[in-house]
Parts: sequence; C-alpha cells; structure tokens
Amino acid sequence: MMMTRREFVSSAAAVVSGMATGMAHSAQQTATARSFKPLRVAQVGAQGHFGDIVTGIPKVEGCSLVAVARSYPDEPVEQLKDKPAWNPDTKTFDNYRQMLDEVKPDIAAVFAPYAHNGQVSIEAVRRGCHVISEKPLASTLEDLDTLRAERDRAKVRVTAMLAMRLHPGLMAAHKAVKEGSIGEPLLISAQKSYAWGKGRPWYFKLRKNYGGSIPWVAIHAIDFIRFVSGLDFASVTARHAVKLHLDYPECEDCGALLFDMANGGQATLTFDYFRPSKAGSHGDDRLRVVGSKGVVEVRITDKTFCELITDEQGPAKLPLS
Amino acid sequence: MMMTRREFVSSAAAVVSGMATGMAHSAQQTATARSFKPLRVAQVGAQGHFGDIVTGIPKVEGCSLVAVARSYPDEPVEQLKDKPAWNPDTKTFDNYRQMLDEVKPDIAAVFAPYAHNGQVSIEAVRRGCHVISEKPLASTLEDLDTLRAERDRAKVRVTAMLAMRLHPGLMAAHKAVKEGSIGEPLLISAQKSYAWGKGRPWYFKLRKNYGGSIPWVAIHAIDFIRFVSGLDFASVTARHAVKLHLDYPECEDCGALLFDMANGGQATLTFDYFRPSKAGSHGDDRLRVVGSKGVVEVRITDKTFCELITDEQGPAKLPLS
Repeated sequence: MMMTRREFVSSAAAVVSGMATGMAHSAQQTATARSFKPLRVAQVGAQGHFGDIVTGIPKVEGCSLVAVARSYPDEPVEQLKDKPAWNPDTKTFDNYRQMLDEVKPDIAAVFAPYAHNGQVSIEAVRRGCHVISEKPLASTLEDLDTLRAERDRAKVRVTAMLAMRLHPGLMAAHKAVKEGSIGEPLLISAQKSYAWGKGRPWYFKLRKNYGGSIPWVAIHAIDFIRFVSGLDFASVTARHAVKLHLDYPECEDCGALLFDMANGGQATLTFDYFRPSKAGSHGDDRLRVVGSKGVVEVRITDKTFCELITDEQGPAKLPLS
Repeated sequence: MMMTRREFVSSAAAVVSGMATGMAHSAQQTATARSFKPLRVAQVGAQGHFGDIVTGIPKVEGCSLVAVARSYPDEPVEQLKDKPAWNPDTKTFDNYRQMLDEVKPDIAAVFAPYAHNGQVSIEAVRRGCHVISEKPLASTLEDLDTLRAERDRAKVRVTAMLAMRLHPGLMAAHKAVKEGSIGEPLLISAQKSYAWGKGRPWYFKLRKNYGGSIPWVAIHAIDFIRFVSGLDFASVTARHAVKLHLDYPECEDCGALLFDMANGGQATLTFDYFRPSKAGSHGDDRLRVVGSKGVVEVRITDKTFCELITDEQGPAKLPLS
C-alpha cells in the first residue's frame, strides 16, 4: 500500500480520534486509484490510549486488527477481546518482535509502557511497518534519532498520538489563527491539569519505564501551542518536581515551562496531577494565544470554552465543529 | 508621629486603595495613645496611580496634602486642583528637593516618571520622611540598596503601591490559602494583560525613564503570587520583547517569567499590553494556585471571578468582601 505522507498522517490522526472519516476517505481514494489492499494493524501492548485504535479500526473500510503482542510479561492483552476491533482471527503473541516477523503488518500500533515505545517503534520500522505510537515517540534523543533514521531508510510513516489537535476547541482556535483573526501570535499560555485518580500503573514509578511527565502530560500542550499558534519553538527552560505523590518517586506531578518562540514572542506552560477529584472533569486543559490584533482562548474541562476577542469585536464564542 | 511598621504599612495600603478605614483606625489609636498630630503629605509628580492618594487623603482624619512638586519641568500638577485632597493651603513647587526642605512633610508621596521614583524616595527618606511610592520602589538594584540603607538610617517607613493586594478577589484567595483550604501551594500561574490605550506618556519610550514593563506591569503579579501563596521565590528566568508598539522601542509589550518557589514548586507569569480595546475591561488579571488539597483561582476583568475547588468539594464561588 502506497500513501502520501499527508494521507498517512491524516488517516492516522483519524484513527486515533475514533473519527475515521478521513481514513475511510483516504482508503476509498486508494481503492479508486489503484487495486484495493486491506490495512493490517498489529498492536504492541495495551497501555495508554490504545482504546482509540481498537475502537477506530472497525470504522475504516478494509482495516483489521490482525494481532496483539504483550509489551511486558503477563500483560493482560486478552482484555482486548471485548473491543470492537477484536475478531476471531486476531492472534496474540508473547513477543512483539516475533509478532512483527510472523504477521508482517502494514501498521504497528505501539502501546508499551511509555518509555519503551521508542524501541518498539524502531523494531517496527526496521521491518517496514508504518507506525502509530502513543506519545512520546521516544524517551531519549538517541532513540528519536535512530527512529528518524530508520524511518527514512525504510520509507515508512511514523506518527504520534497527539490527538488533542482534533479537539473541536483547539481546531476552532487553530482555524481562527490561520485565518488571521488575531494577527500575529505573540504571547501564549497553556495548561495541562490532570486528576491523579485512584492509582497509576506500576511503570509510572520509574522514569526508565514511564518516561517523565513532560513527555507524557505536558507534551499535549507543547504540541497544541505549536498547532494553534503556527509558531515554532526557539528555546525552552523547564522545571518539574515530585511534590505530592511520593510513592511514585520518579513521576513528576507538577512543572512549568517557558519558551522563546521563533518570532520573538513567548509561551508558558504549566502541568500538574493535582486536579481535585471533585473538580467535575479529569482534565483542565487551557490555551490562550494573544496576537497583534486579538486573543483566542480555549478551555477544555467537562465542556469546551472557546472565545475570540479582536480589535473589531468584543468577546465572542467560536463555533465548534 | 510614631508608628509601628505594621501600622504604617497597613495604613499606607489603606490610603492607596482609597479604603482609608485602616489608616483612620490607626490614626485614632495614635490619638488615643498619645497626643494627636496631623499627618502632612507632600506629593512629588502626578504620574501613575496618584489618584488613590489625592482621593484617599480626605478620608483619613487629620491628614492633608500640604504641597505638590513637579517631577519634571512643566509637569501640569495644577490638574490636582480638582481633586478632593487639594485645599487652599496646598503649595506647588518646581523643585521637589526644595519642597521637601521647606515643607518638611511627614510622608512623601512619590509619582515621578517611574524609573525616577527611586531617586526621589532616597531624597525623601534622607530628610526623614516616610515614603509611599508608586511601584517599583527603584529601577536599579543600586537605588534599591541605597533606599533600604537610608531608610534604616532614618528609621522611617517606605512602602510601594502594590494595591492589588486589597482587591477583594485576591484577598479572598489569600484567605483561602491561609486557612489551609488548598493545602500546600505547589503550582501557580499568573497573568497581567493590559490594553495599550490611545497613548502612553512620553517617558514610556525610554527605559531610563520608564523602568521597564516587568517592574511596571508584571510586578503586580509578582507581588500577588507571593501574597496569595504565602511562598517566597527561589529563582527566576524571564523573557520580554517589544513586538507591536514599535514607536515605544524600550517599552516591552509582552513577556513571560518562570519561577522556582522556595518550597520546590513553580510559578509562571505572562504579561502583555495587547488586550483588545473591545475586550470589555482594561485588564485581564489572573491567578491560579494549585495546592496539595485544592485549587483557588481568581480572574479580574470588569467583574471578579474567584473559585475554590477542594478534594472535599467541587467548584464553589468564594465570598468577596
């Protein structure tokens, strides 16, 4: 199966959000343009947001979950049997390398303990698989460099599940900025705030397995700052700490980042695991982009707030699609 | 007149906010305890928030505006004749040193172009005057050190107009934190956003007169972060830029700060002069303090939002007094 980068990225994004329209459309285009080939997905591990994959696959014509491998011994991947993507032919493996070798999937969906995803993805692209990975793509710069090099060698596509780009509030803000409603983006503030919940998986305890809270939590805001503002980062100063959940001594539960943006503006980002359980939503995610001609602001809790203020017009809610 | 530091600071704060209760109470206490002495105020310049002084003075028993001096040649201090504090005996001077020497006020109220206030205050304390100064108290560390040393030598009191501490929203948040409602404060984010307006005084054009936007605008949030959280700062990284108002080439119109707090938590602060004129208020000032047991949040625009979320209780509005 041949896809352009744009097709792959847009269809991968569609899968992760469970909004499979884009991928179905892409698959149909492919089917029209050349002989149709089914899209065979093999999943490694069942950590993080794998639910988007096992829910999304049946929505894409010709796409199937052909196999699932444990990402660590005794990982209970049999829980996936209840999911829409599971079918009588879906095989399970104890060893993901063996799975990739035997099944030869078109796409590897990577959901190991987060810090291990980079290594899994490297193995997958070496075998010629496209990859959709839970973020972060890698937990070390060395892994990231290797993944990039192997991807280029194999001429495959690799994408990370930064699915917040598909949130209606952030899409509306992105559109407003792109249309010039706020002029040039100059100052940005972002927030990720999560409830800790009743417990976290074992691998959150050590960074060598977990990867860190900036790559796991703040990463969404790092991505949507760039997505909405259209600006690249020039430099960053970052701080984090373990303050409250001391039984997870290597899982930072708060932190803050300060960015220089490529145009000379600035951005700040805070993240925390301190959202009270009674707050009414798991997350309190925010973005404010101040530009030369206006301000666009998004807040995502149990509902979405999305507001535009411009030099010509006072505060107005943006339509969400 | 003798006052304890606490009395002076609380009464000065009361004057600046126009809420003269504290000072009147203090003056009454003084009158009861020892022979009553009137409080004679001399004002230098008419820049910044001098309005709080010339409105507040008549609300304090025995307090009067005895003189006003220009802080630069031709400064139109005669505009003060319309203000409540002006009385037939109020004198005007072209030279503030001469005013201080001749009038010998109890308190000098300092409202020169902001970067010059430190020098004026130094001259005032050298003459044994208490000082209430527009913030910042000084624009160089050298001036600040000198002011502190001269203050100690003269045994007088010096306070800066950081009147946002008296805003009902921030007072409510301060009270909530002090009462332990959010546990230990761990992560803080703050915002100062101002409309630029139709014009700014001439001295905003050069930092040697203006002082800078961190000392002029962000300073409020630097102060209320500390006031509300009760935490001291341990270190700071700061960035700012002139992006939009290029005809004021040394007045930074946006910036961001990242603080390590003394307890190992973090704080961020953004400031900007980009608030659209149609936004509905001059400022959009915010503070969010996330603690080990809850979150308190304040937003001050044309109205005040003040919310507390704790582990025991969902979002609730705090009473404002």
